[in-house]
Amino acid sequence: MRLFGMLLTLFVLVLPITAGAADETAASAVEVAKDELQTNINIVWTCIAAFLVFFMQAGFAMVETGFTRAKNAVNILMKNLMDFSVGSIAFFLVGFGLMFGQTNGFFGTTLFGLSGVEPGGDWNWTFLIFQTVFAATAATIVSGAMAERTKFTGYLAYSFFITLFIYPIFGSWAWGGLLDGGGWLEKLGFLDFAGSTVVHSVGGWLALAGAVVLGPRVGKYGPDGKPRAILGHNLPLAALGVFILWFGWFGFNPGSTTTGDGSIGYIAVTTNLSAAAGAIVAMATAWVLLKKPDASMALNGALAGLVAITAPCDGVSPMGAILIGAVGGVLVVLSVLFIDHVLKVDDPVGAVSVHGVCGAWGTLSAGLFNLESGLFYGGGLGQLGVQALGVVTAFAWAFGLGLGLFYLIKVTIGLRVSEEEEQKGLDIGEHGMEAYAGFQIFTTS
Amino acid sequence: MRLFGMLLTLFVLVLPITAGAADETAASAVEVAKDELQTNINIVWTCIAAFLVFFMQAGFAMVETGFTRAKNAVNILMKNLMDFSVGSIAFFLVGFGLMFGQTNGFFGTTLFGLSGVEPGGDWNWTFLIFQTVFAATAATIVSGAMAERTKFTGYLAYSFFITLFIYPIFGSWAWGGLLDGGGWLEKLGFLDFAGSTVVHSVGGWLALAGAVVLGPRVGKYGPDGKPRAILGHNLPLAALGVFILWFGWFGFNPGSTTTGDGSIGYIAVTTNLSAAAGAIVAMATAWVLLKKPDASMALNGALAGLVAITAPCDGVSPMGAILIGAVGGVLVVLSVLFIDHVLKVDDPVGAVSVHGVCGAWGTLSAGLFNLESGLFYGGGLGQLGVQALGVVTAFAWAFGLGLGLFYLIKVTIGLRVSEEEEQKGLDIGEHGMEAYAGFQIFTTS
Amino acid sequence: MRLFGMLLTLFVLVLPITAGAADETAASAVEVAKDELQTNINIVWTCIAAFLVFFMQAGFAMVETGFTRAKNAVNILMKNLMDFSVGSIAFFLVGFGLMFGQTNGFFGTTLFGLSGVEPGGDWNWTFLIFQTVFAATAATIVSGAMAERTKFTGYLAYSFFITLFIYPIFGSWAWGGLLDGGGWLEKLGFLDFAGSTVVHSVGGWLALAGAVVLGPRVGKYGPDGKPRAILGHNLPLAALGVFILWFGWFGFNPGSTTTGDGSIGYIAVTTNLSAAAGAIVAMATAWVLLKKPDASMALNGALAGLVAITAPCDGVSPMGAILIGAVGGVLVVLSVLFIDHVLKVDDPVGAVSVHGVCGAWGTLSAGLFNLESGLFYGGGLGQLGVQALGVVTAFAWAFGLGLGLFYLIKVTIGLRVSEEEEQKGLDIGEHGMEAYAGFQIFTTS
Repeated sequence: MRLFGMLLTLFVLVLPITAGAADETAASAVEVAKDELQTNINIVWTCIAAFLVFFMQAGFAMVETGFTRAKNAVNILMKNLMDFSVGSIAFFLVGFGLMFGQTNGFFGTTLFGLSGVEPGGDWNWTFLIFQTVFAATAATIVSGAMAERTKFTGYLAYSFFITLFIYPIFGSWAWGGLLDGGGWLEKLGFLDFAGSTVVHSVGGWLALAGAVVLGPRVGKYGPDGKPRAILGHNLPLAALGVFILWFGWFGFNPGSTTTGDGSIGYIAVTTNLSAAAGAIVAMATAWVLLKKPDASMALNGALAGLVAITAPCDGVSPMGAILIGAVGGVLVVLSVLFIDHVLKVDDPVGAVSVHGVCGAWGTLSAGLFNLESGLFYGGGLGQLGVQALGVVTAFAWAFGLGLGLFYLIKVTIGLRVSEEEEQKGLDIGEHGMEAYAGFQIFTTS
Repeated sequence: MRLFGMLLTLFVLVLPITAGAADETAASAVEVAKDELQTNINIVWTCIAAFLVFFMQAGFAMVETGFTRAKNAVNILMKNLMDFSVGSIAFFLVGFGLMFGQTNGFFGTTLFGLSGVEPGGDWNWTFLIFQTVFAATAATIVSGAMAERTKFTGYLAYSFFITLFIYPIFGSWAWGGLLDGGGWLEKLGFLDFAGSTVVHSVGGWLALAGAVVLGPRVGKYGPDGKPRAILGHNLPLAALGVFILWFGWFGFNPGSTTTGDGSIGYIAVTTNLSAAAGAIVAMATAWVLLKKPDASMALNGALAGLVAITAPCDGVSPMGAILIGAVGGVLVVLSVLFIDHVLKVDDPVGAVSVHGVCGAWGTLSAGLFNLESGLFYGGGLGQLGVQALGVVTAFAWAFGLGLGLFYLIKVTIGLRVSEEEEQKGLDIGEHGMEAYAGFQIFTTS
Repeated sequence: MRLFGMLLTLFVLVLPITAGAADETAASAVEVAKDELQTNINIVWTCIAAFLVFFMQAGFAMVETGFTRAKNAVNILMKNLMDFSVGSIAFFLVGFGLMFGQTNGFFGTTLFGLSGVEPGGDWNWTFLIFQTVFAATAATIVSGAMAERTKFTGYLAYSFFITLFIYPIFGSWAWGGLLDGGGWLEKLGFLDFAGSTVVHSVGGWLALAGAVVLGPRVGKYGPDGKPRAILGHNLPLAALGVFILWFGWFGFNPGSTTTGDGSIGYIAVTTNLSAAAGAIVAMATAWVLLKKPDASMALNGALAGLVAITAPCDGVSPMGAILIGAVGGVLVVLSVLFIDHVLKVDDPVGAVSVHGVCGAWGTLSAGLFNLESGLFYGGGLGQLGVQALGVVTAFAWAFGLGLGLFYLIKVTIGLRVSEEEEQKGLDIGEHGMEAYAGFQIFTTS
């Protein structure tokens, strides 16, 4: 029976191992299958998010067209179409590599034209389309601030350069750690989940540079230096544009997970609450200051809330999100008035206030409200300091380069149309057509 | 050799058990992984559906703006923007808890502000964003019926209360069984898959109450009491709005599975067929009655089909869906004419007919066409009776509370603008601006 | 100890088998679970893609409305609404079966009304909604070329027949191999991944037939036979339409995988690059030929790039996609001018050039640029030949049947409105209403 005992021992020892081995193989098969499926879920989600962000181009086009005059509508639409088109190709060929290629901390040096990535199912193609629509968002922000007076060729040149290197290089500092390494800001712990700074502030400060170099529209400032309101021609289109942008932002912020899991629902909630608070508070602020619930301010308030929550959306509480949006709603109104009345910079649609100022606020707010590292949650001043560094760096980079670039365009191919063309409208001058040529109103009643 | 026999027996007995144990562990690992992945699929699907439903806000805004006059366009857009913004915050803080918190059968008492739910990947955040856009849909339906004469502050007050408790409490009766228990209507077997009653009829009957308390627009009824057509100013926007709503409805109905599986394709089919039938039949009905294929009626017919199929979409055959939509298409035309000519209630966009009447029809149709319990499929009258009870309850609750609420607003902060303001337009009166101020038409040819 | 040796041998032999059996069961459980989950991912993806393609209906409606005159806007919108509605039902009842039922190589003979498919989670429902929106796209292309002069009843008849059998039968030749067998073109190796030919060329050649049978609009050609520009009334709507179409195309092309995996990201990239190149090159071509960067041409250029890449999108390199789009951008401008000036066929929105001509180009381009079988990649002339055969067949089928069908409608219920009605506008004549009746512009400033 000793033999039996030995064999029993063998059983007791060996069987579990064998079963364990089977388990292990099975477990590994489960892991492999799970990874593959989760990757597919991530691809579906990230692609759809990219499409939603693409659709924001329509939103920007409608907002900018609606907030400006009918005589410049074709020009604005063409600028939106073309900055996306030029940007898509420039970002594919060069920008993506500068932003996400193997980086030295300051810019990437591989993946130009996605060289080395095989056509087919590679994740990088999904990532490329997602990042392309982000780059194009930064580019298109600028067209609003430069509306109604910019030469079309000058604008084409600008939009080529921003997607080629201005946006991607800054982007690589904050988000470049796709491969080993990572950008210098990112290594300091800079938080900008979906791009309050990387996309919106960079776009906003470039817009400011453009508006400064261009100067105000004819008639914007009277001989007394006081600003005159130049009214938009189509508020329904502008409102449609804001709804489209809000819709697209559900791709922008939750999509920045690039992962299909529960956090996308959470980020959708914080994003939505911040936008809602921004709209309400901007309306209230305008009501107090301007005596009426101005619709342009309310619409810009929704955008302010969306821009502000973009950096901190994944790491703040819903109440934090409401506060961040509410502050954005106050800021955007004050900033529009300040830029118009004090700085005397002519920004027809409020792009600098919405994207530049509220982007900066949103980035700082991550240093205040982040549930792990924010000042209000016991995280001290460290995170806030890093956030401030990122905000200042973005301003210096984008506004500085922007001034240089727009000045260069001004003295070479020209940045501004003639006063005569501006009076007549850029649609005729630049494109030889009108937005509403066949528009006639019949009334039977 | 007896020992060998014993051991062999041991082998035969023990090995399968061991292997079985391995199997079981593996099977359980598969189940765990599968659940996790399916949850992620559900989250991606439900979030995207929520975004589509959010986009319906743009659809409502365009439909209501297009079907009314240019002088009130800013006001309508602001109401749409603000009811969503106010509603998002009120529903988060209070409404969601009343609707989906632990319920006594009549209202929920937990989950206010989602207290107890951790920030992060919890399913409840996805569910919150999905339910928020549903609540906002109910709220925004009302603005169409009250267009062109409602004081902006009065409307803000209304939209706060509907999302705060009117919609959520009724909702809890039909859909509140997220946690143990469930609402009283739900326990009776009431079928309202995606909200023909919960969302659309509740919105529609509140709209009716609003239109009744307000009274008709200046000039709507002549001294002879006959209705005069007050024409909308922008049919392309209205048509765009209907296309956007149809698009968003693919989130509304299939999304109400909150599960990413094959039933979403089926529900998309029934939803689409019903909408198509509604559009065709409403056009045909208008053609017969009004001698022309009226576009407003065809557009409202598509919406009628969509509203009607919302309750029964998951449980009827495609032919059933076509019939349900077709009846909706007849009903909406008759109802618009009845409300206009007989009730003499002024509903500028037909919201009561589309959402109230066709919502009731759709809810009843589940009692007729449901493949399991419907009257036409041998299910007897039981289901139809429960459906009728739900329909009547919704009317009593929403119309009754609506009358009270709007009357209360009327006698406190005021519900209607002055006749002078109405004549001049609410855009100037309420918001100090115009929708098309910078609109000028140049013609070169 | 010999017994022990035997038993040890037994262990060594039997245990792995047992463990293997456990493995195998587990592996099969993993496969089953994986298949089920991947199917759900595919359903979610394919449904969302279908919804995006549905939304293209709004895009077509806006493009066609914007590019034509205000007095015909209601009519165009109604045609878009109705061809989708009529088409949805006709395709469900008959078209789907002809296209995807058990086929003899020339048409399908089962699956009419999806008979035999149970209501519920079956994949065919998802496939039906996806294919319905494709069929409707082919149908709606035609309305643009026939705009501003077609009788509404004639158009309704046409749109019924195209979705009933013209589109589905051709479709079965190229895509009918859902069940055993497959269409004859498909068996020859014809490549048309998402329908440059099946959807766009078929729609485009039908549009050509319609425009030919109708004749040009009153005033389009002067007594000298020279074409006169008849300007569109709302370029912002047209531009919005193009953005919506571009957005929807991310459902059209990547969605044609009907599989949620990495290839959707890749196809999104080629689709986007081709569209961008098309817009830029069409603008440049127009700039050279017409001396101005014409917006209509740039917008049509984006569509040209999208149509062209639709056939080859899954099998070409990104640089190939850029070239395909660029050629499409040249072609669309030349084709618009050629049809207008040489053929003297009046196509108000350029539908024949965009969908017919660029669809043919895109289909041929697969024979040139396909990475496996294209001429430029060493694949010889074989693929190109098959592609040319498909292109010619599509023209013969769609243009031929189209001529017959439109002529038949012309001599029976009538295809064209009276000259008086055309002058006055089809909105009044056909629908008894106007698009902008309540439109009035106030100016405070």
